[in-house]
Amino acid sequence: MAALDDITFILNDVLQAPATWQALPPFADTDADLALQVLEEAGKFVASVVAPLQRIGDTVGCRFDAGQVITPPGFKAAYQAFWQAGWPSLSCAVEDGGQGLPAVLEGVLFEMLAGANHGWTMAPGLLHGAYECLKHHGSDALKARYLEKIATGEWLATMCLTEAHAGSDLGLVRTKGTPQADGSYAVNGSKTFISGGEHDLTDNIVHLVLARLPDAPAGPKGLSLFLVPKIMPNGARNAVVCERIEEKMGLHGSPTCVMRFDDATGWLVGEANKGLNAMFVMMNAARLHVGLQGLGLLEAAWQKASAYAAERRQMRAPGARETSLIADHPAIQRILATQRAWIDGGRVLAYHTALQLDVAKHSTDAAQRATAQRWCALVTPVLKAAFTDQAFSGASACLQVFGGHGYISEWGIEQIVRDSRVAMIYEGTNEIQAIDLLVRKVLADGGTGMCALLAEQPASARRDALVEVTQALVSPNSDPALPYWVADDYLRAVALLLLDGAWAQISATSTAPRWHSPAQAFQTWVLPEFDMRLAIIRQRLAGGPNNA
Amino acid sequence: MAALDDITFILNDVLQAPATWQALPPFADTDADLALQVLEEAGKFVASVVAPLQRIGDTVGCRFDAGQVITPPGFKAAYQAFWQAGWPSLSCAVEDGGQGLPAVLEGVLFEMLAGANHGWTMAPGLLHGAYECLKHHGSDALKARYLEKIATGEWLATMCLTEAHAGSDLGLVRTKGTPQADGSYAVNGSKTFISGGEHDLTDNIVHLVLARLPDAPAGPKGLSLFLVPKIMPNGARNAVVCERIEEKMGLHGSPTCVMRFDDATGWLVGEANKGLNAMFVMMNAARLHVGLQGLGLLEAAWQKASAYAAERRQMRAPGARETSLIADHPAIQRILATQRAWIDGGRVLAYHTALQLDVAKHSTDAAQRATAQRWCALVTPVLKAAFTDQAFSGASACLQVFGGHGYISEWGIEQIVRDSRVAMIYEGTNEIQAIDLLVRKVLADGGTGMCALLAEQPASARRDALVEVTQALVSPNSDPALPYWVADDYLRAVALLLLDGAWAQISATSTAPRWHSPAQAFQTWVLPEFDMRLAIIRQRLAGGPNNA
Repeated sequence: MAALDDITFILNDVLQAPATWQALPPFADTDADLALQVLEEAGKFVASVVAPLQRIGDTVGCRFDAGQVITPPGFKAAYQAFWQAGWPSLSCAVEDGGQGLPAVLEGVLFEMLAGANHGWTMAPGLLHGAYECLKHHGSDALKARYLEKIATGEWLATMCLTEAHAGSDLGLVRTKGTPQADGSYAVNGSKTFISGGEHDLTDNIVHLVLARLPDAPAGPKGLSLFLVPKIMPNGARNAVVCERIEEKMGLHGSPTCVMRFDDATGWLVGEANKGLNAMFVMMNAARLHVGLQGLGLLEAAWQKASAYAAERRQMRAPGARETSLIADHPAIQRILATQRAWIDGGRVLAYHTALQLDVAKHSTDAAQRATAQRWCALVTPVLKAAFTDQAFSGASACLQVFGGHGYISEWGIEQIVRDSRVAMIYEGTNEIQAIDLLVRKVLADGGTGMCALLAEQPASARRDALVEVTQALVSPNSDPALPYWVADDYLRAVALLLLDGAWAQISATSTAPRWHSPAQAFQTWVLPEFDMRLAIIRQRLAGGPNNA
Repeated sequence: MAALDDITFILNDVLQAPATWQALPPFADTDADLALQVLEEAGKFVASVVAPLQRIGDTVGCRFDAGQVITPPGFKAAYQAFWQAGWPSLSCAVEDGGQGLPAVLEGVLFEMLAGANHGWTMAPGLLHGAYECLKHHGSDALKARYLEKIATGEWLATMCLTEAHAGSDLGLVRTKGTPQADGSYAVNGSKTFISGGEHDLTDNIVHLVLARLPDAPAGPKGLSLFLVPKIMPNGARNAVVCERIEEKMGLHGSPTCVMRFDDATGWLVGEANKGLNAMFVMMNAARLHVGLQGLGLLEAAWQKASAYAAERRQMRAPGARETSLIADHPAIQRILATQRAWIDGGRVLAYHTALQLDVAKHSTDAAQRATAQRWCALVTPVLKAAFTDQAFSGASACLQVFGGHGYISEWGIEQIVRDSRVAMIYEGTNEIQAIDLLVRKVLADGGTGMCALLAEQPASARRDALVEVTQALVSPNSDPALPYWVADDYLRAVALLLLDGAWAQISATSTAPRWHSPAQAFQTWVLPEFDMRLAIIRQRLAGGPNNA
C-alpha cells in the first residue's frame, strides 16, 4: 500500500515541491491538487493491478521457450493497462504524447511500483531513459518512427550495454556496427544481462545498443549507439534473438536475457563514437530511479514487518506483566524505527533531487540551473548506493522481525530481500558510485562543488569535519590510490550528513510523534556511523594501515 | 575446498590446541598428528562426497509427497557413507560407539561441512545435541535402545520445540504428553520449523519433543522432554506425521517440516517439568556449531569471490597501465581482506571456545573448569550472533565482487547468501543472543564474570572502555529497559574486542604476509565499529534519545 500521507507530507510540507516546480515554465499550471490527484490514482493502480502480481512473478517467473520469453500470468494484461492509462508518459513532453508533469511525480510512481512489484517494474523502468536518449540524440527520421511509441510505452525499450567480458568496463565492448549502403548499420555481437531483452508484453521492443564502428578507436571513446528494433518498420522480424534467460537470486518476474545480434539492422543514434555521451544524458535520472527503487522496497519491507510486529505476541517486554506484542520489544522497535529513519529522510533527499533534475533542465535562471546540476551530479551516486545498500540490509532486518517465518516464502519478506539485492549492482555497482562521487566528481574540481553543497547544509560539527576531510582528500597526496581506498567511507559520510540535514527539515516542519520517533532513531542508531567513517578516512590520511 | 593449512595453523600454532586437549584425561593420547590425519580425511570426504551435492540440493531441493519427504538425488547415499565412515560419532564417547576425539575436531568438521553444503549438513547437525541430551538425561532403558544409534548417526534425530504460536517464547508451548499405563506417554500436538522432521536418509528418526504433562504449570517451567521415534521398537509406524514442508529463501536441501503428533507414543527424557534443563545441556555446543556454520559459509563465499577476482579483468587499478584484474582494485581488496579478517580471527575464537567446552567438562582442575565454563557461557552467544551476521553480510559483500554474475544462480555465490540467512534466526535469533549475553549473563552476576574475562584480554584503551561500560550497565539505573536497548551494541563491542585479541594472538605467532594483510584489514575497517558501538551505549547511558 502506497504511503500517500507520508509522501505528500514530504513533498508539500517539508519540500514545498509545488512551489519549486510551478516556478518552472513547463509546470506552471501543475498545482498541488493536480499532483495529489495523480499520486492517488497512481497508488490505486499500483495497489489494484501491479501489487497482486508480485508473488506469482516470483514463484512462476519468466519462462524461456525457443527464443520466446513468456512472462508470468497477468503481467501482460497489467502492462497493457499501464501504458494505456498513460502512466509511462507521465513526465514526457506533451508534444511527444506525454503528460508533461514534473519528474518528481514519475519518481514517486516508480518508487510505489518497485515496492509493490520490483520484477514487473523492470519492464517500464528503462522507458524514460530511452525516451530522453532518443529525444536528445535521435535523428528526425528515427524520432518520427519511435519517439511517441517509447514515450507512451506502447513499445518497450532496452539498454544493450554489457557483454560477457565488459561489465563495469564498457570500454571493452566488442559488438560491431557496420555501415550499409542504405544508411543503416549491420549490428553483430552478443550482449548479456539485458533486462527485458525479449518478452510478450508489447508488440515491439526497441533496443539501444552500444557497439563499435569499423574504424572506431579502442576504449570507451570508440563506442557508438544504435537503435535496433525487434520488429522492422516493414513488419519483418529483425536478426536479434534471445539466446537464453538467466536463473537469478530474485527478480524472477523480469527476464534477464542474453541477446545475439546477427547482422541485425540498426540506425545510429547521435554522433559516431559518442555513444557514451548519448547514454550519459539519462544517467542521473536512471540512478535516481534505482535509489527510489531502494526506498520503495524498504518501505514495502517495513510495512510487512510493522504489521507482523503489531500482531505477533512473544515474551514479555521490559516492565510488562503479560506476553507482549513483539512491537513492544526494544530490539524490534529499534529495527523498525531505524528503517523509518532511512525511508523518511531518504524521501526528502530523493524527491528534492528529482525536483532539481527539472530545475537543472527548465529553470530560466542560469545560476539556479548550475546549482541544481551540481546537486544532481554529486548527490545522485550517493542516493543510488546508500539506498540500495539500505534496501537490502534493511529488508533483511525486517525479515528478522518475523523470526523463523521471515525465512518462509509465503510471508513475502524474503522475496523483497532477494529482489532488492540486484539494485546494489546494476546501473553501476555501489563501489563504482563511490568512485564516481569522490574521484570523478569531488576530486575533479578540487572539492569546490562539494564544499559549496555542504555549505548549504545546516551548520554542525559534523558538517565542518566533512568539509575538512574533503579538503584533505583533494590536497596533493603521496598516494594516488588513497581516494580509491576511502571512496566507500566518503560516500557513506556524505549520505549520513545529507540525511541529518533532511531530518532537520522534517523536524522543523512537524513535531508529531510520527516524525519524532524516527528522528530520534536517526540520531541514536544511524548517525553514529558518520563518525566511524570519518575516523577510517582520517586514519588513512594519516598514513595508517595500507593493504595495497 | 577446506582451508586445511589455515585451520591447522590456528589450531596448532596460534592456539596450541593439542597441548590443551592432551591435558584432559580422555584425550591424552590424541596427538597433533592424529588430529591432522582426521582433519585431512574429513577434508577429503567433504570435498568428494558432500560438496558436489550443494547445487542440486538447491535446484532440486526436497519434495513432499503424501507424508513422505524425498531428499535431493545423492543425499541419501552421501549420508549413508557419512555415518558408516564414523563421522557423526567423532566426539562421542568410545563406550557409546564413538571415536572419543576432542569437540574442536568435530567443530572443524562441521565448519567444513556447512561451507560445502549447508542444506545437507542440517541432517547430522542436530545429532550430537540429541546424543548429549539422551546421554545425560535418558533412562537406562532409553539409552540402551537409542544412544548408540544416535551416537553413530545410523538414526537421525530432531528437536521438536517450536509451535506456530511459540517460537522464541517456548513457554507458550501447548503440545501435551499424557501418561499411559505402560509408562509411556501419548503425545499430541503440532510442531513447526522442524528440520529433518521427515526424510529418506535413515531407517528411523528420533524426535525429541517439548510438551506438557497434564498437571504441568504454565510457562517454561511446565515443559517436559519426550523421545518419540518415527518407527516403534516393534517395527510399527508411530503416530507422528509430516503434514507439509516449507518453501524457503534457501536451505532447500533441508526439509523444514510441520509435524503432527496424534497420540504418538513417547517416553519421558529426564525429570518431569525439567524439559528445558535437558535441552540446555547442549545449548552452548549447538550455538557454537551455528557460529561455525557462519565461518564455514563465509570461507566458502570468500573462496569463490577470491578465485573470481583473480581471473576477471575490468578497468585499470590506480597506477596501472592496462586493464587490471579486479583483485587489484582497492574496493575489491577491501571486501576480500575484511572477510578474511573475520574468518581468521573468528576461527581463533571459535576453536578456543570448542576447546573450552572440553576443558569445562573434562579438566581435573575445578578452577580451570569454572573459567572454561565462564568463557563458554559468555562467548558462545557472541560467536553465534556475530558470525552468522557476518556470514550473511560478508557473503553478500563477496557476491558484490562478481558484479552482475553474483546475482546469477550458476555462480553459486547467491546460494550462500540465501542459505546463510537462516542462521541469524535459528538456535535463538541474534537479538535473543544479545539479550542472553547482556541481561541473562552479564547483568546476572553484576558484571563479575565478564570483567574477569576481559581482564584476560590484551591490555588496551578499548578493553578498559568496555570494562567501564560494563560497570555502568550493571550499576543501578533508572530505566530497567536500558539493557534491552543496547544489547545488540554490547554484543558487537564484545565480539570486536575479542577479535582484536584473537588478531594479537595471530600476529604474535606469524608475521607472514598471509596473516599481516587481514590483520591490517581488521584494524582499518573492522575494529572502528567498536568505538561506534560504545558511543551508542554511552549516549543511552547518559540519557540520550529514547524511543520507548
